[in-house]
Amino acid sequence: MSGLPSRVRIVEVGPRDGLQHEPEVLSVDARVAFIEALADAGLPVIEVGAFVRPDRVPQMAATDEVVRRLPSRPGVRYLALVPNRRGLERAFGTGLAGVVVFPAASEAFSQANLGASIDASLARFREVAAGAAAAGLWVRGVVSTAWWCPYSGPVEPDAVRRVAFALLEMGCEEVTLADTIGAATPVEVRALLERLLREIALHRLGVHLHDTRGTALANVLAALELGLASVDASAGGLGGCPFAPGALGNLATEDLLYMLHGMGIATGVDLEKVRSASLALERALGRRVPSRYAQAGPLRPAGASRSV
Amino acid sequence: MSGLPSRVRIVEVGPRDGLQHEPEVLSVDARVAFIEALADAGLPVIEVGAFVRPDRVPQMAATDEVVRRLPSRPGVRYLALVPNRRGLERAFGTGLAGVVVFPAASEAFSQANLGASIDASLARFREVAAGAAAAGLWVRGVVSTAWWCPYSGPVEPDAVRRVAFALLEMGCEEVTLADTIGAATPVEVRALLERLLREIALHRLGVHLHDTRGTALANVLAALELGLASVDASAGGLGGCPFAPGALGNLATEDLLYMLHGMGIATGVDLEKVRSASLALERALGRRVPSRYAQAGPLRPAGASRSV
Repeated sequence: MSGLPSRVRIVEVGPRDGLQHEPEVLSVDARVAFIEALADAGLPVIEVGAFVRPDRVPQMAATDEVVRRLPSRPGVRYLALVPNRRGLERAFGTGLAGVVVFPAASEAFSQANLGASIDASLARFREVAAGAAAAGLWVRGVVSTAWWCPYSGPVEPDAVRRVAFALLEMGCEEVTLADTIGAATPVEVRALLERLLREIALHRLGVHLHDTRGTALANVLAALELGLASVDASAGGLGGCPFAPGALGNLATEDLLYMLHGMGIATGVDLEKVRSASLALERALGRRVPSRYAQAGPLRPAGASRSV
Repeated sequence: MSGLPSRVRIVEVGPRDGLQHEPEVLSVDARVAFIEALADAGLPVIEVGAFVRPDRVPQMAATDEVVRRLPSRPGVRYLALVPNRRGLERAFGTGLAGVVVFPAASEAFSQANLGASIDASLARFREVAAGAAAAGLWVRGVVSTAWWCPYSGPVEPDAVRRVAFALLEMGCEEVTLADTIGAATPVEVRALLERLLREIALHRLGVHLHDTRGTALANVLAALELGLASVDASAGGLGGCPFAPGALGNLATEDLLYMLHGMGIATGVDLEKVRSASLALERALGRRVPSRYAQAGPLRPAGASRSV
């Protein structure tokens, strides 16, 4: 495993991709407390909300207030999803470090999720990216349905390549490939990454892998073996109930941290603090979080380690 | 991923390692129905029970009756755990194809689980193996706590090597390495396997990985990349409640099948039939099974596939 990175940067998406699928709508206070606990654990980049329509996604309402309430912390960047120019205006002046634009690689998913063709959504996101950059904000691009679409099946690597290049051209420093419905397997992860790495530098690519069918960490391993060092994860594995058909289930930050640290890969994140944040949230949500590590807890006796 | 095997043989351990940790004790009828459904799904090797003390492990009581009730099927081998000579006598005449012996690589775990030192347990298992071989039974060896011990922490590869060689010498055709408490990570899996593969042929090694902290499938991938082609799994992920601290959680057969098939690796097993067997068992157990695939279900639209 010589290609493994020595350090991985985790992008925490629990307060956004996690909470937006929860039936329980959390208060601004609860969301701020959750984000503060995650920042305190050392997570360097946190998606804290989305400037989308509150009547459609009430879980993300008042994202501007959430961001305003977060104290600035050196080394921590707060991001939010911004679908259009109106959303961007809500983001200005909140203290947000950057915005996330999120086109799909599948035409059918783009229509269903964004109500627009891929090209029309790219035009919208181009406007967001330009406005954000002009205001000094960082722009992160996420390509949804980069492997499988729930409506049209497998997505061609060339379709992903086209959207990834559009994101780079509109000013995204990084492009993250999302397995939105948790359907990819390691051979597919590797195939797409190898295709993109022919033309895109390693440090400009990341992965966002859902654990719907249990394959997320194996898919992370496939990405790590190619040297990728940016991985999204959601505290507690929030992002869909694992006990409902069609569960969305994000990769749990705790499970990812446990694996990375066990492999000798540094993250700068305190696993037990992330677990505490998830367990505190369980009370607010009224259900157990799906992270296996969060439920099982630490195993290694204090001080136990090995050199491998 | 050129080292991947083209075919993997799955050893189904749900009726044994899965059910033995369930608070609900299933009837012989329910156990037979479960095993029959798994055999019907194409699983080629199934651990169906254990000849242990019924007062200590009531879930495994009447294993002899379970085995007698199973009709012989071409291409399916039923195995059971046999801890000692007395257990072996109960196995004779039932129609069992083979026995499983299961020493630990950790002295502390051996004392706690088997009530004997590693050497004393090896002497007992040697007697079982000799008696089984004399009766024409297949002998499978499983090394428990091959990476981590819940009492003493990390286990040295040389300690595992010693037990593995003892198993080969007593007549085991195969040695399976068990991450009994689901603590290993891919770098550790690879390091131990690379150590053993210097001296032991690939086809004589297998892995039994628990998913307690979510790393089981990533660990499987690490083993596959070295060419290993024998993997244990438990239908539904039975083997511990994922929502209890210290959960044991076996790797779910469904999650493993989903990943293998998605990677183009053949198993001969029908994933949807295994899922049906697990969901049928949910009613008998009165709880959801932890397999993520079992809960999420099939995604790929009928006929959808890709070549990667």
